[in-house]
Amino acid sequence: MGRDERGVTPQSEDFSAWYNELVAKAQLVDRGPAKGTMVIRPYGYRLWELLQAELDQRIKDTGHENAYFPLLIPESYLQREAQHVEGFAPELAVVTHAGGKELEEPLVVRPTSETIIGEMMAKWVSSHRDLPLLLNQWANVVRWELRPRMFLRTTEFLWQEGHTAHADEAGAMRETMLALGLYTEVCRDIAALPVVPGEKTPGERFAGAVRTFTVEAMMRDGKALQSGTSHYMGTNFADAFEIQYTSQAGRLERCHTTSWGMTTRMIGAVVMTHGDDKGLVLPPRLAPYQVVIVPIGRGEEVPAAARELAGRLKAAGVRVHVDDRDHLSPGYRFNDWELRGAPVRLELGPRDLESGTVVMAMRLGQEGKRTIPLGSVAEIMPGVLADFQAFLLRRATEFREARTRTADTWQAFADGVTSGWASAPHCGRAVCEDDIKAETAATPRCVPLDAPPSGGVCVRCGQPGAYGKRVLFGRSY
Amino acid sequence: MGRDERGVTPQSEDFSAWYNELVAKAQLVDRGPAKGTMVIRPYGYRLWELLQAELDQRIKDTGHENAYFPLLIPESYLQREAQHVEGFAPELAVVTHAGGKELEEPLVVRPTSETIIGEMMAKWVSSHRDLPLLLNQWANVVRWELRPRMFLRTTEFLWQEGHTAHADEAGAMRETMLALGLYTEVCRDIAALPVVPGEKTPGERFAGAVRTFTVEAMMRDGKALQSGTSHYMGTNFADAFEIQYTSQAGRLERCHTTSWGMTTRMIGAVVMTHGDDKGLVLPPRLAPYQVVIVPIGRGEEVPAAARELAGRLKAAGVRVHVDDRDHLSPGYRFNDWELRGAPVRLELGPRDLESGTVVMAMRLGQEGKRTIPLGSVAEIMPGVLADFQAFLLRRATEFREARTRTADTWQAFADGVTSGWASAPHCGRAVCEDDIKAETAATPRCVPLDAPPSGGVCVRCGQPGAYGKRVLFGRSY
Repeated sequence: MGRDERGVTPQSEDFSAWYNELVAKAQLVDRGPAKGTMVIRPYGYRLWELLQAELDQRIKDTGHENAYFPLLIPESYLQREAQHVEGFAPELAVVTHAGGKELEEPLVVRPTSETIIGEMMAKWVSSHRDLPLLLNQWANVVRWELRPRMFLRTTEFLWQEGHTAHADEAGAMRETMLALGLYTEVCRDIAALPVVPGEKTPGERFAGAVRTFTVEAMMRDGKALQSGTSHYMGTNFADAFEIQYTSQAGRLERCHTTSWGMTTRMIGAVVMTHGDDKGLVLPPRLAPYQVVIVPIGRGEEVPAAARELAGRLKAAGVRVHVDDRDHLSPGYRFNDWELRGAPVRLELGPRDLESGTVVMAMRLGQEGKRTIPLGSVAEIMPGVLADFQAFLLRRATEFREARTRTADTWQAFADGVTSGWASAPHCGRAVCEDDIKAETAATPRCVPLDAPPSGGVCVRCGQPGAYGKRVLFGRSY
Repeated sequence: MGRDERGVTPQSEDFSAWYNELVAKAQLVDRGPAKGTMVIRPYGYRLWELLQAELDQRIKDTGHENAYFPLLIPESYLQREAQHVEGFAPELAVVTHAGGKELEEPLVVRPTSETIIGEMMAKWVSSHRDLPLLLNQWANVVRWELRPRMFLRTTEFLWQEGHTAHADEAGAMRETMLALGLYTEVCRDIAALPVVPGEKTPGERFAGAVRTFTVEAMMRDGKALQSGTSHYMGTNFADAFEIQYTSQAGRLERCHTTSWGMTTRMIGAVVMTHGDDKGLVLPPRLAPYQVVIVPIGRGEEVPAAARELAGRLKAAGVRVHVDDRDHLSPGYRFNDWELRGAPVRLELGPRDLESGTVVMAMRLGQEGKRTIPLGSVAEIMPGVLADFQAFLLRRATEFREARTRTADTWQAFADGVTSGWASAPHCGRAVCEDDIKAETAATPRCVPLDAPPSGGVCVRCGQPGAYGKRVLFGRSY
């Protein structure tokens, strides 16, 4: 493979081509044979595993238990909640034959599991003592996708879906916000994504939800990516599946339920938030290899020293890889790990070994190449990685702030959503949202939780603002 | 819920009823709505997570990387390997409609992933430098099941499937045996299952394999449960999917591939190997709660002391749970944790607190109830749990040995497979295997790897023995 085969189209030329080429060339993903499916390759899957471990720990620490529910759901289950089936019907994959026969009732491949989990919750909950019921599932789901995009929109994707049942609205709303908080934290602290948590406007709600909350991230082309959602269902699913309990007072009451999910699209978010024309830039906390050591030159001494150094880094808790492919030139290997986004590269040659030093290069080239004593590498590395993690978050935050326009006029709004987001008062009417979308391709991303109160009239139609604060608009994936 | 609702049919009366009742009442599993599907409840799923973590670590430590391949496979893929499709066709679930339309080519819900992984391997492997390619996937698979049994035979189950490609037979066979070794180790050291590793006879091979290896466990009714399998595929799948590489000498060569899997049926194996008439008996290394503390009596002091003790146990690396459901009697809670198989129960009442002691009861009642100083509980517990783990393995090994009959006559063989296994010379002919099965319901479980060389004529037909050693026969799940 020559250098050119690894090069990617510059972001400024065609962001979409840059992304598609990069996720393939960095070996994160490959196309599956069935329409819109993806193969998550080891390097991409390792990213997912690292994210999963962080999120799973937080889900468990907040009292949730993992369980597993069937993939195949009777078609009739989905029909029990009217809005839910309306939202998902066009995307369903349906098993009509099994075991060599036509099934009496077709089975849907789960697009999400509210219905089947609702059915089981109804069976498991009977007393107020059974509440809250706090469940989570790590699973694959299938939603037929006409315009697939690796990680972002695929026919099958991996996710976790939390499903909880509560005695009342207050409990369920606390849960909805707790899950949103976990997503905000994981995005910010692990993936270095400075997401904006907020509420979706009514037109953007999940099919069957009473309220939908989201964390929105800004990609380097200024578009928004919904990176996790948390829904308060009211009693919609409890009504459809009869999830009820006897209260302390002895009355039969309906539960209030929630659901919340984060998916493999997070990998796409990381690629499009931090990557550049040389390739991926991975936040250390998600990087499969935080440090890659490239031994230079022939002979046994340098590779042996590289392995010894790797051992010390590993002992210091660093994920490290020695790239000893000596049939490839050092330059080729340097480029390869820039393409694949390793945060730190250590170059080790015979002269370095003689002088007891190693050359350290950061993925974004900050501070140029530095020569550091071999003996101190393992000691300083955790700090170097933490600094790089913080730098990526700061850079992404500054980028998002620079590209978010406070807009009080239509012109400012239209300009804002061309290169990023616009923060503006809105009337809250669906027809006005549609009108904005038709004109600019922008949609309301969320009403940010932490936005200050703000008056003003709708930036599009001049009617009174509906939310008491500004709404964030942007084009989105 | 009264005591009787939790009681289970004794093993001696109806082993099958005992199992079915226990896995439901201990809240490991529930029935799913679609035929043969199961819901793995939090207590059962936690067992799976703990097993998964142990196996995953070993898979990674031996150089394999996790990846994820699509659930939906074009039907034509399966047809490329003749034996493979013949074996799996009757069990397939087929998606014929998606996105509101009939599909041009039906998609099969994966029953196993040799075909789709074979297709990708062909794309990823070109040089001898790309080998060995060592992949693993954690996933759900679907095989339509006419006689479902929770965990043991379900329409959908969870598993890991290792898939590897090698330059030659020697490399692939080393890998096949390495995977078998991992399974043997995980069964023995984690699940306390003294499995017998061995090779399947030709009639029992995986569809498409050249050689199939297995680890066989004995349940407490004397039946065998195949607990993990490892297959050497020769070049069968490499031929079907053109998985090939250029050798160092510049020649185009076919790869040799392997696959190996372990599934959620392991939970059933643990239940049926260690459980008794009171309920589950969980090996500490898989127990969601290794120690359950039951505070006795009213007031705040005892529960507070229980939580403090739990904190010290947790700090000592013990998985501990405080059952403070004070609306339930102590006796009810004791029985509940016997049903659910917690290895150690600690009973803590006001008098214990006064005297600075706690009452410890082992799940199998060994040594009766012991009174131990509160201050030493956390210190001794890791040892107590390790002893219990070793005890379970020893007990299961003695049981298996006592129920395995070395048989040189047909009468001894027939007697042996009534209550356990028979170890006997066999001619290796499929018709003779069929004859034995028709007569006794026993099948060849494996030719044990570590069996000593042994001559003798076939225990059934008198023809010469085929394997140079005895074959293990038994009835099986």
